[in-house]
Amino acid sequence: MNKKLQNEKKKDYAKIALQLHKKNKGKLSISSKMPLKTVDDWSVAYTPGVGAVSSYLAKYPEKAREYTIKNNTVAVVSDGTAVLGLGNIGPYGALPVMEGKCAIFKKMADVNAFPICLDTQDPEEIIETVKRIAPVFGGINLEDIKAPQCFYIEKRLKEELDIPVMHDDQHGTAIIVLAGLINAAKVVKKNLKKMKIVLVGAGAAGTAITLILKQFGVENIIVVDSKGILNKKRDYLYPYKKDLIKITNPENIQGEMNNALINADAVVAVSGPGHIFKKDIEVMNEKAIVFALANPVPEIMPEEAFSAGAYIVATGRSDFPNQINNALVFPGIFRGALDHKVCKITDDIKIKAAKSLATLVKKPTASRIIPSLQTKGLVNAIAKVVR
Amino acid sequence: MNKKLQNEKKKDYAKIALQLHKKNKGKLSISSKMPLKTVDDWSVAYTPGVGAVSSYLAKYPEKAREYTIKNNTVAVVSDGTAVLGLGNIGPYGALPVMEGKCAIFKKMADVNAFPICLDTQDPEEIIETVKRIAPVFGGINLEDIKAPQCFYIEKRLKEELDIPVMHDDQHGTAIIVLAGLINAAKVVKKNLKKMKIVLVGAGAAGTAITLILKQFGVENIIVVDSKGILNKKRDYLYPYKKDLIKITNPENIQGEMNNALINADAVVAVSGPGHIFKKDIEVMNEKAIVFALANPVPEIMPEEAFSAGAYIVATGRSDFPNQINNALVFPGIFRGALDHKVCKITDDIKIKAAKSLATLVKKPTASRIIPSLQTKGLVNAIAKVVR
Repeated sequence: MNKKLQNEKKKDYAKIALQLHKKNKGKLSISSKMPLKTVDDWSVAYTPGVGAVSSYLAKYPEKAREYTIKNNTVAVVSDGTAVLGLGNIGPYGALPVMEGKCAIFKKMADVNAFPICLDTQDPEEIIETVKRIAPVFGGINLEDIKAPQCFYIEKRLKEELDIPVMHDDQHGTAIIVLAGLINAAKVVKKNLKKMKIVLVGAGAAGTAITLILKQFGVENIIVVDSKGILNKKRDYLYPYKKDLIKITNPENIQGEMNNALINADAVVAVSGPGHIFKKDIEVMNEKAIVFALANPVPEIMPEEAFSAGAYIVATGRSDFPNQINNALVFPGIFRGALDHKVCKITDDIKIKAAKSLATLVKKPTASRIIPSLQTKGLVNAIAKVVR
Repeated sequence: MNKKLQNEKKKDYAKIALQLHKKNKGKLSISSKMPLKTVDDWSVAYTPGVGAVSSYLAKYPEKAREYTIKNNTVAVVSDGTAVLGLGNIGPYGALPVMEGKCAIFKKMADVNAFPICLDTQDPEEIIETVKRIAPVFGGINLEDIKAPQCFYIEKRLKEELDIPVMHDDQHGTAIIVLAGLINAAKVVKKNLKKMKIVLVGAGAAGTAITLILKQFGVENIIVVDSKGILNKKRDYLYPYKKDLIKITNPENIQGEMNNALINADAVVAVSGPGHIFKKDIEVMNEKAIVFALANPVPEIMPEEAFSAGAYIVATGRSDFPNQINNALVFPGIFRGALDHKVCKITDDIKIKAAKSLATLVKKPTASRIIPSLQTKGLVNAIAKVVR
């Protein structure tokens, strides 16, 4: 598809989306799994029968995972501070996206998910609120919360709740990116751990990708933010960026992004539309791997990247090959956590999930390093490693 | 059904309820109203199409009522402090009841309802939390929150939110009791406003019933709590009870419940099992009306009340005639509020709802003063007065 056609399609999607959301008045429906037809039905689902279930759970609250929707229900929680590429658009702007995410949860993994869009952007208030509504949920999917707050909020909730908590913008993205790089390395016949990899963007996703790559064993990672390469001479940084410097950039390279990309084997960009130019790709090592993940407009369009020498290109879009899509990941993670009563999504689980995802592509090629959403056994391949 | 059979049935319901709740793992299911089959489906329900809806709602948040589930979704919120007749059993004990309520919302009035069971019992924290999660909801049904906190929580939320808030234990009960008394008065050919009515129980329900009766025009109401008749000499009372004294007990009668019941035309008991004896009914006026609403065991069993001279008896149970059931009320109230974008459930609406409910019983008799759950047009009869 050329650019003009793509833009028309995008405009169409926007128009159709507005029409259909208005027609359907939202995307989710809540229904009863138990019939309410006869007096006996009512007497079992509600009073007096339900009283026995309530008394039992008052005595054994941990059994709520067996007798209530806590068994299979996840909250998709956002404060609306970093929604899609649209920025801080608040809880009402966030709601259609969170509803969509809930619809995907059900479609992909039969998980009941409910959107919680918060009328606060204060981290302490967000933490308090999620903790207070947690009894109903078997897991918390944090979504579209900006950095650096997202790190603190996730850390605190993981420590203080006994159900799994995952910020999908961080870890869902990190898992699918690692899966893609594992297969890309196979295609270019390089050892992923020995590659020089540049991360462009040091927000939620960039940080989580850096951490998972490091955990996987990649030794030479350089992170670039809007001011240039993260290095030991940089001042006035958020603490989390100082932490990144401790584990990246072993040669302490300084300067602009272009400087970091010299002889890089792969670049993973999670920053914003048009941030990478042909001249940046041209300085990379041979068989360069380019993940340009800004959505819907990537940091560099695939055709430009290829013409500058890229060998493999991945984007966040469905209309190009190699779509890096979190929907490949989060349904399986929570399916597994709910099924196996797992309370923490550990680094180990994330790496195993990425490896398992990668193996779903039987013979990786430059235009097929990521499994498709239709891949048989996709959700289970991830769920089974969450133990 | 005799007592033994009833007890067996109750035991059966408990047993079956435990079995079915475990088998079904809760009662609610959340699904997508939009298909997620083709790439186009995904591109409209989720990115990139959904971005247009998010941008639109960021600019016009008030349109969330048209484009999202806010249109038709109610939160059923409880802190678990007063669940059924089981008392303070916390959020996990409350959850099966709230799920049941949500199931009823859908069955009766096609409202999507989601249970929010809170891990706090502090009124300020409850208020804060509900306000922070309010963006997703078109209404708040407070449930099973004990007095006096329930009054304060409801008052604050009504003042501070722009969506309807109703504590069902108060107003749902008050509306159906008033409807029942309107028809009972017709049966005994008395003027309801001139009746002497005794309220037994001065909690959430007792208070709301007193207020709606007063608002309706009943002049002589006497309220009795666990210490006896509320009167001007009583000390150490919650402020809300002092307020009740200002509008009730015009002759300032003192003493025990039995004293209040002398020559009373009706007694409405919302206190607890077995609180009323034959001797209490025997002192009432002729054609006495007895509403014994504790559930599942009433303040006095119907056969006892009748043998002591009662003419009409209502309970909260489905196995006796005249079931006073909130499920007759709350679905219609929220259906109407959502459809007509009503933000406050006023006293006027409540009285109109009670009158409308009463008219659904074409020819009231002693054993039929309340419409059944199967009554055609039931939800609409209430919804239409909520404007």
